[in-house]
Amino acid sequence: MKIVREKSEYHRQTSERMAKHFAVPHWTARQKLALAGRILGMEGHDSGLAGQLSARAEKPGTYYMLRFGLGLEEASPDNLLLVDDDLNVLEGDGMPNPSNRFHLWVYRAKPQVRSIMHTHPPYVSALSMIGVPLSVAHMDTTLFHDDCAWLPEWPGTPIGDEEGRIISEAIGEKRAILLAHHGQLAACGTIEEAAVLSIFIERAARLQLMAMSAGRIQAIDPALAGEAHDYRLKERAIGATFYYFARRALRGDPEAALFDAPGTAASRHHAAE
Amino acid sequence: MKIVREKSEYHRQTSERMAKHFAVPHWTARQKLALAGRILGMEGHDSGLAGQLSARAEKPGTYYMLRFGLGLEEASPDNLLLVDDDLNVLEGDGMPNPSNRFHLWVYRAKPQVRSIMHTHPPYVSALSMIGVPLSVAHMDTTLFHDDCAWLPEWPGTPIGDEEGRIISEAIGEKRAILLAHHGQLAACGTIEEAAVLSIFIERAARLQLMAMSAGRIQAIDPALAGEAHDYRLKERAIGATFYYFARRALRGDPEAALFDAPGTAASRHHAAE
Amino acid sequence: MKIVREKSEYHRQTSERMAKHFAVPHWTARQKLALAGRILGMEGHDSGLAGQLSARAEKPGTYYMLRFGLGLEEASPDNLLLVDDDLNVLEGDGMPNPSNRFHLWVYRAKPQVRSIMHTHPPYVSALSMIGVPLSVAHMDTTLFHDDCAWLPEWPGTPIGDEEGRIISEAIGEKRAILLAHHGQLAACGTIEEAAVLSIFIERAARLQLMAMSAGRIQAIDPALAGEAHDYRLKERAIGATFYYFARRALRGDPEAALFDAPGTAASRHHAAE
Amino acid sequence: MKIVREKSEYHRQTSERMAKHFAVPHWTARQKLALAGRILGMEGHDSGLAGQLSARAEKPGTYYMLRFGLGLEEASPDNLLLVDDDLNVLEGDGMPNPSNRFHLWVYRAKPQVRSIMHTHPPYVSALSMIGVPLSVAHMDTTLFHDDCAWLPEWPGTPIGDEEGRIISEAIGEKRAILLAHHGQLAACGTIEEAAVLSIFIERAARLQLMAMSAGRIQAIDPALAGEAHDYRLKERAIGATFYYFARRALRGDPEAALFDAPGTAASRHHAAE
Repeated sequence: MKIVREKSEYHRQTSERMAKHFAVPHWTARQKLALAGRILGMEGHDSGLAGQLSARAEKPGTYYMLRFGLGLEEASPDNLLLVDDDLNVLEGDGMPNPSNRFHLWVYRAKPQVRSIMHTHPPYVSALSMIGVPLSVAHMDTTLFHDDCAWLPEWPGTPIGDEEGRIISEAIGEKRAILLAHHGQLAACGTIEEAAVLSIFIERAARLQLMAMSAGRIQAIDPALAGEAHDYRLKERAIGATFYYFARRALRGDPEAALFDAPGTAASRHHAAE
Repeated sequence: MKIVREKSEYHRQTSERMAKHFAVPHWTARQKLALAGRILGMEGHDSGLAGQLSARAEKPGTYYMLRFGLGLEEASPDNLLLVDDDLNVLEGDGMPNPSNRFHLWVYRAKPQVRSIMHTHPPYVSALSMIGVPLSVAHMDTTLFHDDCAWLPEWPGTPIGDEEGRIISEAIGEKRAILLAHHGQLAACGTIEEAAVLSIFIERAARLQLMAMSAGRIQAIDPALAGEAHDYRLKERAIGATFYYFARRALRGDPEAALFDAPGTAASRHHAAE
Repeated sequence: MKIVREKSEYHRQTSERMAKHFAVPHWTARQKLALAGRILGMEGHDSGLAGQLSARAEKPGTYYMLRFGLGLEEASPDNLLLVDDDLNVLEGDGMPNPSNRFHLWVYRAKPQVRSIMHTHPPYVSALSMIGVPLSVAHMDTTLFHDDCAWLPEWPGTPIGDEEGRIISEAIGEKRAILLAHHGQLAACGTIEEAAVLSIFIERAARLQLMAMSAGRIQAIDPALAGEAHDYRLKERAIGATFYYFARRALRGDPEAALFDAPGTAASRHHAAE
Repeated sequence: MKIVREKSEYHRQTSERMAKHFAVPHWTARQKLALAGRILGMEGHDSGLAGQLSARAEKPGTYYMLRFGLGLEEASPDNLLLVDDDLNVLEGDGMPNPSNRFHLWVYRAKPQVRSIMHTHPPYVSALSMIGVPLSVAHMDTTLFHDDCAWLPEWPGTPIGDEEGRIISEAIGEKRAILLAHHGQLAACGTIEEAAVLSIFIERAARLQLMAMSAGRIQAIDPALAGEAHDYRLKERAIGATFYYFARRALRGDPEAALFDAPGTAASRHHAAE
């Protein structure tokens, strides 16, 4: 049997099947944000206490943030802080990372952004030191095709307002940005998307550094890269990818029960349809 | 005592001894395919949900495949899908990876191929970005001597028929192929061989990248490489190597009992003759 | 709401909040030194038995040191040695590393130094072979801005007095030094600071090697680097960072109870304010 | 107090103290050889089933060897084979690796050699592909100063006699050899020394590759390197280093009891004097 169809037909079929088969647990925002912390911890994103994850909370102008002093992998639904848009704590004990001030600038400038993840993982950090933007030359990194900005100057420790203004302007209409001498930031419409982009920008930086150390990176066709970008950013694909990394992060975690979606214990188990 | 013999005599003796001593468990095809997933997961082959493993099932024109949405290390004999040669699901819940469509093209073109493993592991991925084929310059990578093709162009996300045609033509008569900007594929007569080649192509890419970053790779004698290629691909040697990696992958795995060969519990233990 | 303030205001606010929220356990000196060993072991600092950690003990001219023959991760409060300033053992069984003699020279020359950590971790070691000083070109490594000396010659195995004189002179007024063909040394006012600098100099060397293998490192603004240096070396920030790495090192450690601060079991748990 | 002594005095003192404090368990040869396998497995030396460890047994012309088909980390005192000097099995089930034939050639040529460890670990393997000898430019790798030979040609899969002759001649009077396109071999007077050299040649290759990828390796003073070489190869230092790695390899190993030295359970615990 050899049926040949148009590729557009396969794209349509894939979307239909994903809609049917790629169900994910209905986690709360607190659970998803804390899960993102554990996932990025597992993926080696820590740089000591640097790195901040945040998401818009239910009430406009309020945000969930990790408590400063905890590592990414220590995040839990019940140790997140709720803060206002001047970083004052509304719920929870402790303080947010003062560098989260620049998150506020991005949220103000981009109403569609609901979650920001900013980390200093090692490959992104090394790449950020040599004055080149992120290179998109592999199918799995097309997530960033025409979707990763580049701030070539380091404005200093970003605890002030000026740094927030610079970063929020530099990201422009893109989902992600590589910050020179500093790290990466993903600003997305969902927590899941921000987490997946953070995972893959570090992996992209790793590929780029290894490739550059051994040879010269060859370009890919921008039209094909654009098609792949859209394919990989389908909401269902992002959801299934986040769910996979969540299962990995929780495997063997004695606190896994904290991440059971309300009304179910399914989050710790394989998808069962 | 110093007996000196012809090398051909040692090759004969080695084959005889392997026939006697290298017994392996009699796993089912489902068990072997799922084991391959766990092995490649352990070896760091994941790129999120990318990567697909498949094998011919008993009935012609049907195939076992991993369920899309599960990671390599989550494969189990009972969560594999049975699909027809248009990727429709015959048994099991969920959907196959739509990119598995290009597997179908390879199976159609190469009747002797019974298993295909396609992954995007990091070293292969980085190597695939710099426009060079796989280099065979170490005894342990002679598995690929004159046996690894190279597709220098990336045809885009391989969910369509055109991509399947391109890849199946590019691999030609070889067991493996390096796919530019994409990953690796091994198409072999047995599941064990496809798994072992997948393990070692990633290790070969790692050696190549490290060597290229530090110096210039020196060539080896093609005749000696060819002899080593045949030595390493002896069926008994491949079987023993797969069995070793299977033991490693199952060590400490709470689901190890799923991989006991029918009628025995030996698969989790050291070979006992 | 968009309030804009001077950056100095945010620095003041951050210091206030850290003073309020960044409490740490009141470990003994023995506990802190042994914790540093476990942290550096976790961070991959071993080079077999090479590497020595020490701290001033209560009585002037006496020091706590790891027992020679134990690995970094085997350090415990009760297996440290107390030695005099000629390396004679006052309390404990075993011998100190004879290379600790050069610690004595540093302590004599720098009364404000209370702890010295000297290790040969892999990235620092590789960097130490190519004749270049540590490069500070990332926000997280500004800890070493104008604060890491460089000894370009290797004086040989440092068990003698001459080697001690050379190293103690080379470090000068800085907190850290990169020792050619040898390793790193941090000499600080507290055990916590020496540990944090040891963690981060290895990470800095890793970033530098990866960046140099792929391109040319771009310089950062010295004034901003100096500001970030001071921000990161705030005593409360160092304490919270050490505490975080301690929690990580003790997670799952069957001997974790040895590190409960006197009068509490809190050290193994997340900061609870 | 500032006492200054000749360095020779410190060398004498160190030897005395090591003689007093560096006691190790009295393992059997089988236990030590199997421990070496577990240590090298932990250190990442596997290349599938490649890699062979051997030691002279009590009766002249007989040898202990790992069973072919087992991984390094699966070695146990009771699964080693006893073979004669034509690789015929005298005790145990299974077959030795046919490539062990070249061990026999080394044992015949060098009566003082009592143990040979040959592995294909990744950094040594990558280094072996670029046509350069091992570089000794770090204090911790002075173990190999003027003590590591270099075979620049690959004679093919070493299951024959000709390959054995070539390798045994190439190593000459040195303890170790880097084999182009192949791996490393340490041939030493004790199992402990062969294991420690095998650990450190891989670490040396890693340092060399990282250093070469980032810059140009600077030479060290040969006289100082020679002094450090002898210091590090003191029998007591080698013994203590082997013991440390053995403790690490056995930590959490459910089979650790197999390595209790006869008449004691101390091998799994920290040295207690």
